[in-house]
Amino acid sequence: MDVVRVKIVNRSLAPGDRLPSIRRFARSMSASPSTVAEVYARLEAEGVIRARRGSGFYVTGADLPPMALAEMGEPRERTVDPFWVSRLSLDAGSSDLMPGCGWLPASWMPNGAIRKGLRALSRGEAGLLTDYGSTRGALALRRLLIGRFAEEGLPATVSQVMLTGSGTQAIDLICRLLLRPGDTVLLDDPCYFNFQALLRAHQVRIVSVPFTPEGPDADGFERVVSAEKPRLYITNSALHNPTGATVSPQSAYRVLSVAASHGMTIVEDDIFADFEPALSPRLAVLDGLNRVIRIGSFSKTLSASIRCGYIAARQDWIESLTDLQIATCFSGPSPLAASIITGILTGGSYRRHMDELRQRLASAREETAKRLAPLGLVPWVMPRGGFYLWCRLPEGLDSSSIAQRCMEDKVILAPGNVFSVSQTAGGFLRFNVAHMADKRIYMALEKAMTGPARPV
Amino acid sequence: MDVVRVKIVNRSLAPGDRLPSIRRFARSMSASPSTVAEVYARLEAEGVIRARRGSGFYVTGADLPPMALAEMGEPRERTVDPFWVSRLSLDAGSSDLMPGCGWLPASWMPNGAIRKGLRALSRGEAGLLTDYGSTRGALALRRLLIGRFAEEGLPATVSQVMLTGSGTQAIDLICRLLLRPGDTVLLDDPCYFNFQALLRAHQVRIVSVPFTPEGPDADGFERVVSAEKPRLYITNSALHNPTGATVSPQSAYRVLSVAASHGMTIVEDDIFADFEPALSPRLAVLDGLNRVIRIGSFSKTLSASIRCGYIAARQDWIESLTDLQIATCFSGPSPLAASIITGILTGGSYRRHMDELRQRLASAREETAKRLAPLGLVPWVMPRGGFYLWCRLPEGLDSSSIAQRCMEDKVILAPGNVFSVSQTAGGFLRFNVAHMADKRIYMALEKAMTGPARPV
Repeated sequence: MDVVRVKIVNRSLAPGDRLPSIRRFARSMSASPSTVAEVYARLEAEGVIRARRGSGFYVTGADLPPMALAEMGEPRERTVDPFWVSRLSLDAGSSDLMPGCGWLPASWMPNGAIRKGLRALSRGEAGLLTDYGSTRGALALRRLLIGRFAEEGLPATVSQVMLTGSGTQAIDLICRLLLRPGDTVLLDDPCYFNFQALLRAHQVRIVSVPFTPEGPDADGFERVVSAEKPRLYITNSALHNPTGATVSPQSAYRVLSVAASHGMTIVEDDIFADFEPALSPRLAVLDGLNRVIRIGSFSKTLSASIRCGYIAARQDWIESLTDLQIATCFSGPSPLAASIITGILTGGSYRRHMDELRQRLASAREETAKRLAPLGLVPWVMPRGGFYLWCRLPEGLDSSSIAQRCMEDKVILAPGNVFSVSQTAGGFLRFNVAHMADKRIYMALEKAMTGPARPV
Repeated sequence: MDVVRVKIVNRSLAPGDRLPSIRRFARSMSASPSTVAEVYARLEAEGVIRARRGSGFYVTGADLPPMALAEMGEPRERTVDPFWVSRLSLDAGSSDLMPGCGWLPASWMPNGAIRKGLRALSRGEAGLLTDYGSTRGALALRRLLIGRFAEEGLPATVSQVMLTGSGTQAIDLICRLLLRPGDTVLLDDPCYFNFQALLRAHQVRIVSVPFTPEGPDADGFERVVSAEKPRLYITNSALHNPTGATVSPQSAYRVLSVAASHGMTIVEDDIFADFEPALSPRLAVLDGLNRVIRIGSFSKTLSASIRCGYIAARQDWIESLTDLQIATCFSGPSPLAASIITGILTGGSYRRHMDELRQRLASAREETAKRLAPLGLVPWVMPRGGFYLWCRLPEGLDSSSIAQRCMEDKVILAPGNVFSVSQTAGGFLRFNVAHMADKRIYMALEKAMTGPARPV
């Protein structure tokens, strides 16, 4: 019965298609005709198929009953790949625990300020509610951004900034502008898994450099850039995803020098910037937006539902990126979104909110490290800020197997190899300390780590 | 002085760069050194450059004074290409008149319902305000969509629908999935200008078929599909952009047959659907989402600021498109946006709002046609609904020249050739009847159409 349902769900049998006759189906499945007749009768009762007199059984196109869908192989059977964590976390049920996800719980976000912003909008100007955005995005928010850049020592004009639908979409636009299939792109190892997924969509060749607690391995970086001549290097600033490490000033300087010698462009993803206790070296600031492109968004600090990101770069690149955004999304991002964000950032409560958030994360980080210690899970570095603890498993344990087992207990982990181009992080797990309170997580971990070895 | 400013704006001279010495610059510009010295002194007074003792003049990176920017060549000097209307309309000043744009004035949109939706959200669940969307987008809105499809006679399951950031982004995702550089894609001639811009971003070869008042020219369609074997055909449903024509049932059937014989996939853009007085043939409905992919959005009927579009297609394609959306935008579109839209569509006022809108457009269409007639501007067809009147100019006049002249009077038109792959629509203009009330438009048109011939 499942076979028929799967065929229907996969559209191998489309609405209106005629099912094989009972006899033929029975023969192909090596089952008795009476069994198949029973199956067809049950599916007909469910409304999934319908008998037409003298003609046979046809697929109706009605939704399969929820229980039937639950019985079928779910997407959770997929291989642990760079989409594994995304799909599971984004589509998680309300009873799933999500220590592997990359965002804060809704209750930690500045909900009061958002509600206030929505109320203000509801009384605001009609154009804001319904018009398309200007091609570069709301001027007020771009001015605000260059004001913040100026505080960091990065001079930029509003013509060097454009708003986008999200941070990921910002990087995607840059890739579309600068890359051709077959180009080489450099990533840290480990790095944010969606960088890999995105680059695969661009059909480029990915090479990697090991990431150390101070930044990309210095000699390794020089070697791989000389040998492979990547067009682009994509990295985090502030607090590395997944390790939580911070790049040292020496490392930042070396990266820029090597990039300059080899004509390599750098994309620096700044989305965790405000979680730092104090400003660390920024490639974009040292470089002055010449060779470095800065991208960011407000998804981690304000809201992932009010979608808005930005790109800061050389003006001629911004011109071309704007045209590309018009062609592929028509207009800049939601003026409504930009308005709410601008309101919150200028509202006066933002600084205090971030102070509290940093403190809350610091406590959660300490607490989480303490509770993971008895299980033998040890942080690779203790981050200065941010969400993550990148923890090494005891010898002999594989994080993908542990993650698969924990799924059965409805705990969604982030196994190391989804972050690793070279697949050398099988001994690591990335934990989001804001989602580590529930004791069921530790129980599931212990069970998965100490149970008998099973084939994956 | 402008030369230096332009160089600075274009980043040929970047912050920190040293300007050429006064003597050298004077020589290169064939000007006297004292003139250049005066120019440098003025720029230094403006804060744009700074003198360093014994070293020369350096670019500071400060914003250019607004007046200086206004004096410089604006983007309006660009060639009339598929981006011409987009950039001008999206970045229009509040005193510009926009008969060439493709959306309704803010005052015509359902603002009351949107404000109500924002207020409801401000009291709503925290997760909705800050969480990422699920990978396929809010289930409630997807269910609502398949309910509407069912009313049209198109059976679909929620697994065949995904939400996207916009209608344009929906088509872009489909292009990314199905096309490789060098593939051939078929468009109507004329067609929506952003289809061209989008396909150029995908580096595909574009071929076209003339559009008649009943749909694509029947013999021409068969010929070009046989000869060129396009991978994809992208078209409108309901009310063609820019002509306003409606496809006949015979034309729809022929298009599908030819597509089927040659294995060509069709993308049917449904965004103007609700502006029809009654349902016209839909390729997606006749085909049942087998070979046809339907895309749509709410930008034209509800809001272009609350960004949300959708794709309805075979389930296996939806699975792949979802992965592509995760890789390039991370997560589905804003749950906040989906929530407001769902609220409006189920709120009870939507049907009445659309009835009123259709009547308002019908009056505006009649009125506009009457006022254009004395100028010799005649509609190619009189549309059954929608925004547009596609009007032929009197013999000998070129719409691109007329559009360039009208820009000087702050009237932004949509000249025919931005819509035409074969560049054979130079005698046409597309008017948006919702933006045709102001008499200054007719005055500018008359002036541009009757003035002495000038070189473009």
